[in-house]
Order: sequence, then structure tokens, then C-alpha cells
Amino acid sequence: MIKDLWLVGIGTGSPVHLTLEGRSALRDAAAILLPRKGPGKDDLATLRASLLASTGSGAAVLPFDMPVRDESLPYLERVERWHDEIAEIWQQTLRETTVDGPVALMVWGDPGLYDSTLRIAQRLTPVPALRVVPGITALQALTAAHAVPFNTIDGAVTITTGQQLRENGMPVGSSSVFVMLDGQCSFRQARTDDCYIWWGAFLGMPEQVTLAGPVSETADQIVALRAAERARHGWIMDTYLLRRPG
Amino acid sequence: MIKDLWLVGIGTGSPVHLTLEGRSALRDAAAILLPRKGPGKDDLATLRASLLASTGSGAAVLPFDMPVRDESLPYLERVERWHDEIAEIWQQTLRETTVDGPVALMVWGDPGLYDSTLRIAQRLTPVPALRVVPGITALQALTAAHAVPFNTIDGAVTITTGQQLRENGMPVGSSSVFVMLDGQCSFRQARTDDCYIWWGAFLGMPEQVTLAGPVSETADQIVALRAAERARHGWIMDTYLLRRPG
Repeated sequence: MIKDLWLVGIGTGSPVHLTLEGRSALRDAAAILLPRKGPGKDDLATLRASLLASTGSGAAVLPFDMPVRDESLPYLERVERWHDEIAEIWQQTLRETTVDGPVALMVWGDPGLYDSTLRIAQRLTPVPALRVVPGITALQALTAAHAVPFNTIDGAVTITTGQQLRENGMPVGSSSVFVMLDGQCSFRQARTDDCYIWWGAFLGMPEQVTLAGPVSETADQIVALRAAERARHGWIMDTYLLRRPG
Repeated sequence: MIKDLWLVGIGTGSPVHLTLEGRSALRDAAAILLPRKGPGKDDLATLRASLLASTGSGAAVLPFDMPVRDESLPYLERVERWHDEIAEIWQQTLRETTVDGPVALMVWGDPGLYDSTLRIAQRLTPVPALRVVPGITALQALTAAHAVPFNTIDGAVTITTGQQLRENGMPVGSSSVFVMLDGQCSFRQARTDDCYIWWGAFLGMPEQVTLAGPVSETADQIVALRAAERARHGWIMDTYLLRRPG
């Protein structure tokens, strides 16, 4: 039975995003639960493996296959079911190992932000003692790449999704809006014409690309660049910051 | 003339919050601009100095005195004037040194989030080439300490200030609300009675304290604990997450 599960934020693909705490955790863990490569996931799996190697960790690697989401289900039910299945796979993988000691997971970005690892871990029986090691998020990699502040002076910031932006428009009361998980370039469909946009993809990686400017002048360039980069790499992860004028 | 200014996020007081990139930057910098100790700032100045020493950096330390804010001015004007004065002090400090090479600043948390360093750096003439090294924020240290997700599934997150929470209430459309810079425990004054609160102070430090529960049952405990901790240490830095039910 696993007693300690460590969720280690590893940042967004740059090996130097790792914190000293994260590096120690990967070194001290007895085992690492590592998702196997899969279609379109090869780059990320390779990144995780090379990051782990760079820490000098001697932890046993416990590979597991990610289940496929059932796209026929409604969104929330689909996500819940998928989390149940991942938890079951972890449970089984951990049951089959003879490793004794803390088990770690390498989590993209920060284990708390738009990531399911914490929710999946809570489904294990018995629930192990959880340790969360914070990591650099794509939002921080974005503002660092552009050398732009996260917020305006004393202004509120909202972090939201492409779907929410399309459905509800720009959040009321926030001068700065970060958008994640937006495959549809929703800044074109929401009322963001008066905003400035800072966009970036593959943030922190050698493949990093960025663009910034008024939405009215930059939107089409971002859409074209995003499509080209996605075609070139076979996948893309991107995010952006919208800021209202004034 | 300084050509390169590096703003290095150092996390929130835990030396292991530092990223590998941050550690390298502090080692590679020719000089570090370091605020001198002052009333109530001793702990933070000591923390910065000991963190710097732990990296093995041989950089020259350029101490400077932080100016005092003119409390008679209206808020935004006071902040603008203060930033002007800090920029002038940096400029003068850098003019007086013979150090040649990149100059670094150690920034609490992340250089982008509720921090003025980027805005002050933009005031230097000529504006140096800026490099931003992201760092772990108090928000991430808070969610890690509580092992709680940053956001609900697909839900928006707002980061705001105590003043905004008091004036505008809970932001519309966000299920998760982080509050920073709140010396007044504004969760008591805003309509947050139906929320759950995760609170923490001195996050990442040995002095760390946390409390969590329904606001209706926990608010008074937090206010009392915050007052006691503040009295004990002579200062306090805290933040909290509010989440709506459902």
C-alpha cells in the first residue's frame, strides 16, 4: 500500500524551471509514476524522462497507460469517469510493485492549476498522504517571456478557459485576463477588440514562440502562426494574456 | 551604464522554492541590487542574504535604501512617485559602481505578480535589457500547503486585493478567488459567508501557519490567529483562497 504520494510541479518544459524542492523530491522518491508515450504525447514523455534523468534520480520508474476519454459523454461526466479510470490504473500499478517508500508524479506546470492530479489522487483508497511541490506555470512563463507584469497596479486578474471566454465574454472587474486550454483562438470571438494581447506557445522550451500587440492588429497573425507551429510540431500548447486599455 | 537587468523570482521564503534558473542567474550575475534592512524588514533582508549565500554566488552586493512612501498623496500618485524614487536610487547606485556585467534583483514570489520591480525597471534610462526569471508565488505556496487545487474543473479563478473584495464583493463568474494584500481580513466584510476559505501566512517558511474551513465557522479563528502571529513576529504576510460551494 502506498503511504506517501508526492505531486511535483516541473514547470513547462524547461529543465531549469524545476525548483530545488522539486529536484530533491524526484531524487528522494522511491518510485515515479510516469505516463507511457502515446500518440501526440511523445515530446512530453521524452521531456519528462530527460528531466528525471537530469536530476540524477535513482527512483524506480513505474510506467502506466493513460486511458482514453469517452467523447460520447457530456463534459463533466466524461472528466469524472476519466479521473476514476486513471485512479484505478494508478492503484493497480502500485499494487503490482514491490517498491517501498514515497511515490512521485511529475506534473506539468503546477500541480494545482488546471491539472487533475490532485483530484485523481483523492480517489485512491486509502488516500495517501499528499505532498504538493509547487511549479512554474505557463502563465508565469508567458509573462516572463514578454517581461510584462501579471497584473495592473492594484488590478484584479482572472484566469479562465477559452470556452468561458466565448460564452461569457471578458470577465467583469478584471483588467488582466489569462486564457488557458483554448484551441479555438477565442480572442477572435469574444469582445476583446480593444484589448492588448500577449501570446506564447511552447513556453520555456527551445521551440518557444511569442507575439504581442493590440488584438485588432495581432489576432490574425497569432491564428496563422499558431496553425503553422501546430502543423510543424504535430501538437501545440499555448496561452495568452488579454489586458484592457487604461 | 547597466545593459542587463535580471529580475529573479525567489519564491516566498523557502530557499528550496528557488528554481534552477534562478540559482544560475544569481550565480552568474556580476552584481545584486539588495534593499538594506529597515524597520520591520529585517527578516526579509536576512532571508534574501542567506538565500544568496546558499547559491554560492560571488556577485558584488550593491545595497540601497528603500524610500518612504508619502502617505499624504492619493494612492495611485503615491505609488507612481514611490516607483520614480526607487528608480532614481537604482540609477544612482548603478552609476557609482564599477561592476561590469548583468545586475540582478531578488524578487519575492514572481517578478510579475503584485510586484513593482518591472514597472520600476522600465523607468531606468536607458531601459536595460530585462530578463525575468519566474518564481513560486504565495498563491502556489498556499495551494501546495493545503494540497488543494487552484481552480475547480473548468472554473475561472480571480486574483484580487482586499480593497477590491470589500468594494466590489466576490467577483462574478469565478468559482475560486485569491485575495492578496489584505491587512483587513476582508472576508468578514464581503459576502463570503457561503464560501470555504483556505488561509495561510509565512507560506514556505518555518513559521508557516494555515487554517481552512467554511468562512462562517473559520473567520473568527483566522482573525485571532493572524493577530497573534503578527504580534509574535512583528510583521505578517498572508493570503487566502475563497471558493464558492458547488
